[in-house]
Amino acid sequence: MQTILIIGAGKSSSYLIDFLLDSAGIKNRKVIVADVSVKIAAEKIKSNPFATAVAIDIDNPEERSSWIQKSDIVISMLPAFLHSVIAKDCLALGKHFFTASYESEELRKLASEIKVKNLLFLNECGLDPGIDHMSAMKIIEQEKAKGNEILSFKSFCGGVLAPESEDNPWKYKFTWNPRNVVLAGQGVSRYFQAGQIKCIPYHKLFERLETVNFTQAGEFDGYANRDSLKYKTIYGLDNISTLLRGTLRRSGFCQAWDVFVQLGMTDDSYQIDFKADLTYRGFLNTFLPYHSSKTVEEKLQEYLPNINIEILSKLEWLGFFSNKTLPKTSGSPAALLQKILEEKWQLSPKDKDMVVLQHQFIINGAFGTKEIISSLVCIGENQEYTAMAKTVGLPLAIAVDLFLDGKIKSRGLQIPIDQEFYNPILEAMKSEGVFFEEIEKPNIQ
Amino acid sequence: MQTILIIGAGKSSSYLIDFLLDSAGIKNRKVIVADVSVKIAAEKIKSNPFATAVAIDIDNPEERSSWIQKSDIVISMLPAFLHSVIAKDCLALGKHFFTASYESEELRKLASEIKVKNLLFLNECGLDPGIDHMSAMKIIEQEKAKGNEILSFKSFCGGVLAPESEDNPWKYKFTWNPRNVVLAGQGVSRYFQAGQIKCIPYHKLFERLETVNFTQAGEFDGYANRDSLKYKTIYGLDNISTLLRGTLRRSGFCQAWDVFVQLGMTDDSYQIDFKADLTYRGFLNTFLPYHSSKTVEEKLQEYLPNINIEILSKLEWLGFFSNKTLPKTSGSPAALLQKILEEKWQLSPKDKDMVVLQHQFIINGAFGTKEIISSLVCIGENQEYTAMAKTVGLPLAIAVDLFLDGKIKSRGLQIPIDQEFYNPILEAMKSEGVFFEEIEKPNIQ
Repeated sequence: MQTILIIGAGKSSSYLIDFLLDSAGIKNRKVIVADVSVKIAAEKIKSNPFATAVAIDIDNPEERSSWIQKSDIVISMLPAFLHSVIAKDCLALGKHFFTASYESEELRKLASEIKVKNLLFLNECGLDPGIDHMSAMKIIEQEKAKGNEILSFKSFCGGVLAPESEDNPWKYKFTWNPRNVVLAGQGVSRYFQAGQIKCIPYHKLFERLETVNFTQAGEFDGYANRDSLKYKTIYGLDNISTLLRGTLRRSGFCQAWDVFVQLGMTDDSYQIDFKADLTYRGFLNTFLPYHSSKTVEEKLQEYLPNINIEILSKLEWLGFFSNKTLPKTSGSPAALLQKILEEKWQLSPKDKDMVVLQHQFIINGAFGTKEIISSLVCIGENQEYTAMAKTVGLPLAIAVDLFLDGKIKSRGLQIPIDQEFYNPILEAMKSEGVFFEEIEKPNIQ
Repeated sequence: MQTILIIGAGKSSSYLIDFLLDSAGIKNRKVIVADVSVKIAAEKIKSNPFATAVAIDIDNPEERSSWIQKSDIVISMLPAFLHSVIAKDCLALGKHFFTASYESEELRKLASEIKVKNLLFLNECGLDPGIDHMSAMKIIEQEKAKGNEILSFKSFCGGVLAPESEDNPWKYKFTWNPRNVVLAGQGVSRYFQAGQIKCIPYHKLFERLETVNFTQAGEFDGYANRDSLKYKTIYGLDNISTLLRGTLRRSGFCQAWDVFVQLGMTDDSYQIDFKADLTYRGFLNTFLPYHSSKTVEEKLQEYLPNINIEILSKLEWLGFFSNKTLPKTSGSPAALLQKILEEKWQLSPKDKDMVVLQHQFIINGAFGTKEIISSLVCIGENQEYTAMAKTVGLPLAIAVDLFLDGKIKSRGLQIPIDQEFYNPILEAMKSEGVFFEEIEKPNIQ
């Protein structure tokens, strides 16, 4: 009997746990779901006879070891910074290790040891990173096999609201970690365009948008997502001229969000203690130049001349021109803004989320130049079975299933960019209703 | 016989060392000048019979202790991050400790121990911080003593070129640490205006300028310098409505410098390896949005519409529109920019630097409302005897002299904001030709 240990039974684990439980009986497997809250773990296993829910204190090494020791394979669904703790235990105890998060520098240091012990440590097997890698590599390797050359590859992904739930002026609510949304894009973004490195500082990021269209889901703003340069090597695209990974938001969102960026309201690098009676209007005024007689509205318009009536109505809807007291008055500007947004961008019980992903390839071959647009749209069922949980959890669950079935032979520190991973995982995803629609436009030039 | 140990004999130590050597014989003092280069230390003491030049390896604890042990008082002229090492030695060995740098969090942790051992650890006794504190506190305490109320206090300081050396379009050359100039203003700047906290993010800093005038030295741009909020408490200005500390550059500089900030070219947070044949033009293009047919000049103008012919000529003078190869192609954008600037903003042998400092007070009293403008202009003699070395080194040297003469009784961790410090130090500075000119404008409202 094989034992799977899943650490972390939060919101994004629902599909992952269900998938592995569904086949546990038939495949003679045992599933242990461990969470800091045994109640949450128990809810997730739904009295399945092949599953056990247990409480785990991640800070207790003996407790961690005792559960890992009992397992053959460990899936970490913890916040990313905790993965390395679990990974090191797995390495010491000789257990395989799976996550949906980015491969970290810390894990890279363990790579040779993982290989020597003949273990598989698979990271980046969720949505983004995960499905994006797999679906991109499938097309890249197919085209290369035909002797074609990939000139340009742009890939955009986003976690947004289902169109039916877009019932506020921002057409946005928090469908995942609010802090990550507020801080999204900070640092610098880098990519290749027409053979040149391009760098975008944070304060220009939300101005430099591309429009991305989905037949089913409509129009989105795409902005560059951190370091795309390194994917040249990862994806084996050494001669590519344009390479960009981006993030998607519903059209119009970025232009309005940029107001917060321009004002400095998303800054998380310093703390301020405002007076406890600071108003929304006063908070906004903090970031505007002083004028002895002009109103906040006038100063805002003068400071950021691109602001239009649509943006103003979005700000007004959030309460920024009101004399209401701020819900939180101590902390970084980003923390205060997050609190404001959490009150207004809360999902209501009927809301559904949506995941959108699109690859855009320009490819050269004997035929001339063609374009391939490959798009995925996934809509959540409800607030537990979200599109995010589905697209993050299922690829990981499928990878674990395939591995335990002996269908994945790779060992060492891996991300799912080889056929052995992406072919069966994408195939199984299709059966679960998560698939790409491909449009090919021949002779585009 | 009293022994003074000066650690660090770099450019900014010239006046400090000379001042202390001048009176060493009369006052029966010995001066030890220690530097990583004994040659540099020896040049500075000029065969003075009361001085010794020694080599010191700061990383060697025994070597540090042996010299500190031989001294009564230690002056650290090292880079700021090294002060705490010396300070801890001084505390262990019971020696007094003086610097021109900001009081650090690390030193604050030692405050009670310093007090218990009855030592004086004096920091922030240079120019900025230093002369700015002392000259401000003199006016603040004078006005308070008269029962007047300070409504507004703005203070600007800058290290620039002497007008006679402003022979390039930027009217700027590196008169101090180039790296600090390139990174100046990063982070957020905060101050009080009309009773409200104001925050300026870095990408708006060089747009939000105040014009500052000096009768002798002309017009400058002033921009907010980091955290002014804390000076409310430090200067005892609890009811003040406007409080701003700022940095000065020659008029026109900031508007052009802002181009680098807007482009993201001053970013020091990431490293890039460009091709070794990258041109100035190509480097500039890295930060511009792609266009299939527009020139770099056209894209720049479109991306940053505020760019005018004066700014363009400054950029052109630096070579940014040329096809010359960049002098350095690997590193952070800030490091590459610094290298470009170092080639063009180098001081020539005849160049002189200048220090400018201005306090602007608005004060209420029985008389109504008055304004006090107090200005300091100091021009360097040559590249060794610079205005920067004079205004940084002399206050520190004078403080040490006064202390050894028994004229300073304070002990513990201090900055020179009490009369005991500022009255005699400002008085002695005047004898050295460093003094403020005060203009009082009565009944301004």
